[in-house]
Amino acid sequence: MVHRAGPRKDIYYEPNEVKAAIVTCGGLCPGLNDVIRQVVFTLETYGVKNIVGIPFGFRGFFEKGLKEMPLSRNLVENINLAGGSFLGVSRGGPKTSEIVDSIQARRIDMLFVLGGNGTHAGANAIHDECRKRKLKVSVVAVPKTIDNDIPLMDKTFGFDTAVEEAQRAINSAYIEARSAYHGIGLVKLMGRSSGFIAMHASLSSGQVDVCLIPEVSFALDGEYGVLQHLEQLIKNKGFCVVCVAEAAGQELLQNSGATDASGNAILSDIGVHMQQKIKTHFKGIGVHADIKYIDPTYMVRACRANASDAILCTVLGQNAVHGAFAGFSGITSCICNTHYVYLPVTQVITAPKRVNHKGRMWHRCLTSTGQPDFR
Amino acid sequence: MVHRAGPRKDIYYEPNEVKAAIVTCGGLCPGLNDVIRQVVFTLETYGVKNIVGIPFGFRGFFEKGLKEMPLSRNLVENINLAGGSFLGVSRGGPKTSEIVDSIQARRIDMLFVLGGNGTHAGANAIHDECRKRKLKVSVVAVPKTIDNDIPLMDKTFGFDTAVEEAQRAINSAYIEARSAYHGIGLVKLMGRSSGFIAMHASLSSGQVDVCLIPEVSFALDGEYGVLQHLEQLIKNKGFCVVCVAEAAGQELLQNSGATDASGNAILSDIGVHMQQKIKTHFKGIGVHADIKYIDPTYMVRACRANASDAILCTVLGQNAVHGAFAGFSGITSCICNTHYVYLPVTQVITAPKRVNHKGRMWHRCLTSTGQPDFR
Amino acid sequence: MVHRAGPRKDIYYEPNEVKAAIVTCGGLCPGLNDVIRQVVFTLETYGVKNIVGIPFGFRGFFEKGLKEMPLSRNLVENINLAGGSFLGVSRGGPKTSEIVDSIQARRIDMLFVLGGNGTHAGANAIHDECRKRKLKVSVVAVPKTIDNDIPLMDKTFGFDTAVEEAQRAINSAYIEARSAYHGIGLVKLMGRSSGFIAMHASLSSGQVDVCLIPEVSFALDGEYGVLQHLEQLIKNKGFCVVCVAEAAGQELLQNSGATDASGNAILSDIGVHMQQKIKTHFKGIGVHADIKYIDPTYMVRACRANASDAILCTVLGQNAVHGAFAGFSGITSCICNTHYVYLPVTQVITAPKRVNHKGRMWHRCLTSTGQPDFR
Amino acid sequence: MVHRAGPRKDIYYEPNEVKAAIVTCGGLCPGLNDVIRQVVFTLETYGVKNIVGIPFGFRGFFEKGLKEMPLSRNLVENINLAGGSFLGVSRGGPKTSEIVDSIQARRIDMLFVLGGNGTHAGANAIHDECRKRKLKVSVVAVPKTIDNDIPLMDKTFGFDTAVEEAQRAINSAYIEARSAYHGIGLVKLMGRSSGFIAMHASLSSGQVDVCLIPEVSFALDGEYGVLQHLEQLIKNKGFCVVCVAEAAGQELLQNSGATDASGNAILSDIGVHMQQKIKTHFKGIGVHADIKYIDPTYMVRACRANASDAILCTVLGQNAVHGAFAGFSGITSCICNTHYVYLPVTQVITAPKRVNHKGRMWHRCLTSTGQPDFR
Repeated sequence: MVHRAGPRKDIYYEPNEVKAAIVTCGGLCPGLNDVIRQVVFTLETYGVKNIVGIPFGFRGFFEKGLKEMPLSRNLVENINLAGGSFLGVSRGGPKTSEIVDSIQARRIDMLFVLGGNGTHAGANAIHDECRKRKLKVSVVAVPKTIDNDIPLMDKTFGFDTAVEEAQRAINSAYIEARSAYHGIGLVKLMGRSSGFIAMHASLSSGQVDVCLIPEVSFALDGEYGVLQHLEQLIKNKGFCVVCVAEAAGQELLQNSGATDASGNAILSDIGVHMQQKIKTHFKGIGVHADIKYIDPTYMVRACRANASDAILCTVLGQNAVHGAFAGFSGITSCICNTHYVYLPVTQVITAPKRVNHKGRMWHRCLTSTGQPDFR
Repeated sequence: MVHRAGPRKDIYYEPNEVKAAIVTCGGLCPGLNDVIRQVVFTLETYGVKNIVGIPFGFRGFFEKGLKEMPLSRNLVENINLAGGSFLGVSRGGPKTSEIVDSIQARRIDMLFVLGGNGTHAGANAIHDECRKRKLKVSVVAVPKTIDNDIPLMDKTFGFDTAVEEAQRAINSAYIEARSAYHGIGLVKLMGRSSGFIAMHASLSSGQVDVCLIPEVSFALDGEYGVLQHLEQLIKNKGFCVVCVAEAAGQELLQNSGATDASGNAILSDIGVHMQQKIKTHFKGIGVHADIKYIDPTYMVRACRANASDAILCTVLGQNAVHGAFAGFSGITSCICNTHYVYLPVTQVITAPKRVNHKGRMWHRCLTSTGQPDFR
Repeated sequence: MVHRAGPRKDIYYEPNEVKAAIVTCGGLCPGLNDVIRQVVFTLETYGVKNIVGIPFGFRGFFEKGLKEMPLSRNLVENINLAGGSFLGVSRGGPKTSEIVDSIQARRIDMLFVLGGNGTHAGANAIHDECRKRKLKVSVVAVPKTIDNDIPLMDKTFGFDTAVEEAQRAINSAYIEARSAYHGIGLVKLMGRSSGFIAMHASLSSGQVDVCLIPEVSFALDGEYGVLQHLEQLIKNKGFCVVCVAEAAGQELLQNSGATDASGNAILSDIGVHMQQKIKTHFKGIGVHADIKYIDPTYMVRACRANASDAILCTVLGQNAVHGAFAGFSGITSCICNTHYVYLPVTQVITAPKRVNHKGRMWHRCLTSTGQPDFR
Repeated sequence: MVHRAGPRKDIYYEPNEVKAAIVTCGGLCPGLNDVIRQVVFTLETYGVKNIVGIPFGFRGFFEKGLKEMPLSRNLVENINLAGGSFLGVSRGGPKTSEIVDSIQARRIDMLFVLGGNGTHAGANAIHDECRKRKLKVSVVAVPKTIDNDIPLMDKTFGFDTAVEEAQRAINSAYIEARSAYHGIGLVKLMGRSSGFIAMHASLSSGQVDVCLIPEVSFALDGEYGVLQHLEQLIKNKGFCVVCVAEAAGQELLQNSGATDASGNAILSDIGVHMQQKIKTHFKGIGVHADIKYIDPTYMVRACRANASDAILCTVLGQNAVHGAFAGFSGITSCICNTHYVYLPVTQVITAPKRVNHKGRMWHRCLTSTGQPDFR
């Protein structure tokens, strides 16, 4: 079920008759424009002349007033120099059957879908519906999750850039904490189900005293709780920096159970919660503490890809096109155990990958922060 | 009352008998380390050997366990490469008489005070108390306000860097807004009493559609209100970016009347308020809108000074020392009508400078954003 | 002859009949795109519909195959996010009469010219020729010199950015020098006739031990020469950093007398010359020295404008259009003694502004570097 | 001979009796300070109290006046925020027997050596000599080569940062080339024996038209030569960007056969050579061309490590200490086939790893640049 990615000897489409479409779904992630650009470049190299962008995710298939955008090398040449998505993104969208109706009406032969879990589920449904209707449409996905939380995949694009950019927020928190009397810097980083960004950013910055991730439960209160540890840090070191993943400690919060348009649970804000708890705690024990809370989410997401992600996006984009021309559908273009491969889209729609709390990387993170078990 | 700043022929202290102290008060501001460094360098050039830093603002004069830090060229050589304050900052502090007791006990001859309005008031009180006690102590201030809101002064250090760094947040908001379907980017920038940072950042970014400052009142609701205008922007342009100064629209909020340790009023959060109002408004009219709110305050404050601020800090720091050696006390080192001068500290403790809403700069900002009157 | 810049009550052109052209000449300078963008925006605000860019400087008026580019808000919206010139630049060009022939043939009513000394001379000749031919053409210039060397003007756009960006090169030289055994970092910065960039960059970096500018002659050899001083620095401090303006010490070199297409003298490379001299000197005295030479010229020039330059460009661009609509011709849009004004183009074509070697700024630079007189 | 890296159950030294020394050799490379810092941190975690830095490479073992530097967490806490080497580097050094004499005299138990090929040969000789003298000294290396050219190793620290930073130079060359009439941007990147940096930087920038590496020979002249291709690019596209590795095309140059103090061949400058050849070529065919040559070497080397390299350095540094405490000597700490391992130092001193010119990565690079075979 796993195929080595790359160009094939035989191609299953006549390039100058192909109409190819690209769509980007979900939230922003560094590298979206790099993938779009490379898909267009590679399609043109094959000789495809009819390339379009579907604006604002699946919404672009049905929302009146949204027109598909003709794409060419000239137009996308420099889009990688800016962050965001040149095509626009959005969450949710119409029903699968409506999307496939639209695909038929537009006479699309290849659909390149960039998105996360939910989007891959959508891509799979589209693929199935096309098969059912016996449409010869290649649906090829490229996984987009800044959280790097897809099983089997070594890395998803945008993650490296996010870790890099998160340093800026952590360093600001460190500067604020260190310059304040009993300063506590608190940074919330992305990670809807996993703590990879928080763990890597803590490790690379070398400035974090406490790193909290959803994979490792923790108590705030009590003798072995986080607050008690912060008290010790303030006493011994004078300041400290805490990095918390957005999904960490959700069991400590009252969640509404609501979901967003992509079907993701709307999380309660652990950052704001901890800020309050820390304030109250230090007030309670009569110790001055100066808390600064930073949530750099949008400033991280909106960045352009760094060099390492740019290369990853280039290869994934090229391979997506090779896969479509090889006649594959329902696949996703990724890197797996250091090899670039195609996986079935279904593979991606499973439980998210999570930090192994008994693994070496988390252990190195603990060594670096020097934090104890908070239980 | 205004004296041209710079070295004097005669100096009123025997350098190798002088003990000089530096203290930084209030919140962080880019350039603090540049001034500290230059004060130390210049004191050493005069031949001063006994230079100390008072840690964590005026608090360092009385808090047990806080020791003064011996300073030297070697130690401060590279502190300007990082943001924050090498000495630490804090708000508030002990009574004037206690500070002067401590100055006497420590045998300090020169006190360099870096801080804002409140700190200048403190410096003035210290200066007066020293005179009363007939102590020969030079109290020389350097005005520190990232907001650039001191009357008579062309520019205060940190402002230029803040405007530069704010671009990063505005650009993120622009990318998020542009990439989203009906995206609205909202950025709150510093400005406790004035809108200089918001105005300059809006103008220099060229990406802002609506700039709101405290000097110009505005309605959110109503036919000519901000919300109505955003509706138009979403309709015509598809997305928009709003930049709001923290003190803007305070009349629209219920303020608690509380103040912080520096005596500054604790403002209600206009950014959060607007975010809510925008959400509610668009929900009310049944139009999809995707709002992203960014508050980059700490990431802006914690930056190192840019080149232009570095030069300003260098000159202000050098002049502060020249002023002390010239025997001045109760002065502040600043740039005024393109000249570097000493002003009496009392000059600074007046009403803050505010954006002239009939002036050319605000007019240029309006031209750039294209926004109407919101009244 | 000096007029306050800004919009006028009466305008001397019917906007929707106007054809406006923009041309950028000479070498790159941060901010070119900001000015182009703002000229287009402001022209559109007046109601002008026919706006074109002349590609690659005056060359665009005659080179076959170069077509004028229609410009609009949409097209130039984001050009300020990248460095360079959206229209392209080049040096030299056709004869004045040929340019005016072309202006007539193209029915251009307003010509906005961005360039330096030579370009202003060209703009003036075009203006005169138009007058002679009784053509109603407004020729309005915006001075572009990264060197900041035009008399009367407070600052030209790009200078601030250049000083900022030069820090990066100086810091690299500092890191290399400090990390090497007897390391000497040598950085050459722009300045065809003046040392403003070198002086400001040295002052703001605070990492330079010797700053050499064309306004202050120096000996390399001899008891009081630069080489002798470097020897002392290596002996006492272990490393040092030298910053030299490109036009410095030209009297020490054999110049060819050749000029480039803009008529500027082709300077011999003082950086390479010094690198050789330093190597030979230390070899001669049997002392190990490790010299690293950095010439960051193109990396500095190709930057996008920083926030401060972006504002300057915005105002200069707006004013250039106001000036044209007010019926002026043969003027240049600039900032002079803190006021935005129009000066006659002829004013700019005089001897370049030079660093006052008896002034305070140079004195501050000397204090900062601690360098002696090299004579 | 390959051991999984990491902490061991049993340790072969009594931590509080250990004297550990760190030395950094060769040229600068991003991440040196990260490794130094992490080695110190980890040694302290084991309980080592006597940690010293040998200044300026092996030279620090014999040069009079160079004293070893006591190191501690406090001292090295923030050294990773700046580039360079906190300890200083240098090439060459004394004879092995002299170094081991010094190790004995200083009573060093663990020696951590950071360096490249030559340094690893030195480390191996030191290790052998220690064995011969029956000294219980652990010699543990960490490979430092910005070029990423060591066989078996997935990646060496500093490479990722170098590729990232090289983008800045390539983008400047692109901006200069695109903004000039018939502009040609030429960038020389590091790579003493291999083209990894040039290849990766070309691929990630997406702005390079021709990438030249030492592994693939090329002709400049002739029908299929590089110059002919540039002529085509100028004709069809108007501008182009060339990226050349420093060791590329050495067969086209006359080399002196000289070597530097590390024993590396002193290469002739292919960048300068190509600049001349391009100028002459276009002059010869009477076509205007505007060449801009950028050599960013020192600005790339002197950078601080990016996030990805920071993590790599952290792990390599921790493992180096674990290896020493496990009683290993003559090993090097590296990442190999995604696993962190210890390899014998001898493994590193073989022929350098080179780009596989038949491999996928080089093929992707060719696809990206669109360049033909130059033969």
